[in-house]
Amino acid sequence: MENLKKYSRKCESREMPKVMVLRWGHRPRRDARLTTHVALVARALGAAGFILSDTEDKNIKATVEKVARNWGDGFFFEMGTPWKKSVKNWKAKGGIVVHLTAYGENVQTSDVLQRIRSCGKEILIIVGSQKVPREFFLEDFSDFNVAIGNQPHSECASLAVFLDRLFEGEELAKKFADASMWIIPQERGKKVVKGL
Amino acid sequence: MENLKKYSRKCESREMPKVMVLRWGHRPRRDARLTTHVALVARALGAAGFILSDTEDKNIKATVEKVARNWGDGFFFEMGTPWKKSVKNWKAKGGIVVHLTAYGENVQTSDVLQRIRSCGKEILIIVGSQKVPREFFLEDFSDFNVAIGNQPHSECASLAVFLDRLFEGEELAKKFADASMWIIPQERGKKVVKGL
Repeated sequence: MENLKKYSRKCESREMPKVMVLRWGHRPRRDARLTTHVALVARALGAAGFILSDTEDKNIKATVEKVARNWGDGFFFEMGTPWKKSVKNWKAKGGIVVHLTAYGENVQTSDVLQRIRSCGKEILIIVGSQKVPREFFLEDFSDFNVAIGNQPHSECASLAVFLDRLFEGEELAKKFADASMWIIPQERGKKVVKGL
Repeated sequence: MENLKKYSRKCESREMPKVMVLRWGHRPRRDARLTTHVALVARALGAAGFILSDTEDKNIKATVEKVARNWGDGFFFEMGTPWKKSVKNWKAKGGIVVHLTAYGENVQTSDVLQRIRSCGKEILIIVGSQKVPREFFLEDFSDFNVAIGNQPHSECASLAVFLDRLFEGEELAKKFADASMWIIPQERGKKVVKGL
């Protein structure tokens, strides 16, 4: 996490809590596209970085870093670190951990989001894939277990809705700095500007 | 679409606009998991049904129908219909078409969501996969081109955020009727109730 500090500063300057996303349970062949989507959602919806835990996937790293290079802003990417180590480090530095799971407190019907916000802490979001270890639910590891509805659907969707609600939509209006290409929104057609 | 009417009635009773999701560009091997997630997101976040256009994938149909059977509520699933036919039918019946694309009007910085809502019409949401045909952007096919932020990320995430905002979060509090299993939300651990 040697280059984490600069993203932390960036987040402070846009007055959003700093958020990192940890993806657990990635299976390189089966989950390649889904994990890439999860990482791109993390970046596009306001997280400062992404940790692919316990395994490595150089193709995903290359794709995400290429997107970040072309479309702007810094984005932290780390892979291979055991999840328990990442979580312990995060908590040791004063951050909180939010585990997204269909079994958790419902983000719509409970006050869990207010309680997370009122911590005023930096947030590590854990998104699972296959069945997650029982430990994810324990106080030693997760501070909050949050459900984006209590129906089975998608970790990619859960992450997106959680970030959208956490940042109250502002992340979608953010200008990404140092981009070499960007979209001009249109009612019809495509307009992409390419810089130097 | 022989059994569409009953879902329409259901949606009216919960005072949500009836929404269907059309997934374009599914490639059976490469997109299997992602398209399954898109369909499950459609169901879990308040859409009445899902159309897998132009191709068939029996595994996805089986997965989605099993989820709907176990976790409740009706959910319409259709596959193989050419996208142009579905869109034309939808519009002929008075519905509107929303195409989710990173190039469209930004859902956060424009009034596009208000304009969609003020139509008071049933909505067909098109989510792409690979590069979509240029026709998707034309007035003959799409009424609105909507971007969940103008950064590249994920059709699964875009659908989730769009539905969450369209339904103002109420979809996540919905009770699914006729379920044989359901989750009791918990701060810690998993609690699943199984019915008869």
